[in-house]
Amino acid sequence: MTQSLFSASTKVRYEARASYDRDAVHAILDAAFVAHVGLVADDGRPVVIPMLYARHDETLIVHGSPATRLLRSLRKGIDVCVTVTLLDGLVLARSAFHHSVNYRSAVVLGRAEPVDDVAERAALLELLTDRIAPGRVPSLRAMSTKEAQGTSVLLVPIREASAKVRAGMPVDDDEDYELPIWGGVVPMTTTYGEPVDDGRNLPGVAMPDHVRALVTG
Amino acid sequence: MTQSLFSASTKVRYEARASYDRDAVHAILDAAFVAHVGLVADDGRPVVIPMLYARHDETLIVHGSPATRLLRSLRKGIDVCVTVTLLDGLVLARSAFHHSVNYRSAVVLGRAEPVDDVAERAALLELLTDRIAPGRVPSLRAMSTKEAQGTSVLLVPIREASAKVRAGMPVDDDEDYELPIWGGVVPMTTTYGEPVDDGRNLPGVAMPDHVRALVTG
Repeated sequence: MTQSLFSASTKVRYEARASYDRDAVHAILDAAFVAHVGLVADDGRPVVIPMLYARHDETLIVHGSPATRLLRSLRKGIDVCVTVTLLDGLVLARSAFHHSVNYRSAVVLGRAEPVDDVAERAALLELLTDRIAPGRVPSLRAMSTKEAQGTSVLLVPIREASAKVRAGMPVDDDEDYELPIWGGVVPMTTTYGEPVDDGRNLPGVAMPDHVRALVTG
Repeated sequence: MTQSLFSASTKVRYEARASYDRDAVHAILDAAFVAHVGLVADDGRPVVIPMLYARHDETLIVHGSPATRLLRSLRKGIDVCVTVTLLDGLVLARSAFHHSVNYRSAVVLGRAEPVDDVAERAALLELLTDRIAPGRVPSLRAMSTKEAQGTSVLLVPIREASAKVRAGMPVDDDEDYELPIWGGVVPMTTTYGEPVDDGRNLPGVAMPDHVRALVTG
């Protein structure tokens, strides 16, 4: 396959205080809600765990099960690398070498710190919930103190971030365009399907507009 | 949000030599082709980079741009954590706390080693290409020695692996089922769209069956 796989047609980078190319990174971070969070475990080895997140200004709110080894480490405050990747398509070239994928990826470096204040934690979790399912939080019962106590929230101020994007058609060697080989892109999209009632909704409780809106966009 | 986010309803783990639960890990690894690869950089900090991969028996074939910092480190042989996550749905509960996502995730620990032999590298890249776009390799021109020389391939023998899966409906507190709040799941799927010709195909070169098969499954 190809040296251009996951190489960048566009790469941007910014430090926390520069505005340069910040928008490109933010756009990628705001288009997803699962990140792969890497850290160095106590034994010195790398660990990468999927976690839910949302960007709030120049900080990532990160959430996962408090039982994981990852979160136990993070609660001490630890350097993390938070990577988000969106796949946009397969790039089918005329040579294996120039095959690639279209994608958008953001890499955030920072130090994860736990949120100790229970009320702040509850507010951040509601913000995270609202980013994943916009409009849902007002329909829910309030989070109890016990629940907020039993939940981990980490904040990762963005110290440094970069984005890589590949878009568009394959780029073949000039002479390969003379070959009778089909070239093009197969788009990839992640979409929501028809919501499924859990069978325990009370009579008269219809699917709310905020759930329908996830599907219709 | 919830302590159950990215906690497991099912977690399996196996060492390289045990067959126990191996199938669950393999099924997840074989359902994707982008992994998030974590390593510890020279400065001691974690780095997580998206890379293409395919499983071959108990080894992952991993590929990315040779220009990346990640691959330069990996070429020395280095411990990596290769994590693959597939999102299956949003789990909308009656409390923010019990919100979750349905997903399948596999975590592979191992030591990445570069493939130095150029012919072996070309063969592995073709295997990887074939896994991402089945049936395509026979239609392509052969990879040149120069191309194989300019491409990085890493092998990661699976030393230890684990899988986590969450599936099914929200699990609310008993008393919350009495609330007039809609609960259920919004399925998520990643699909291929209609392939797009790059506009440079020779007259009479139609979209081949192996490309059409990506869309129709």
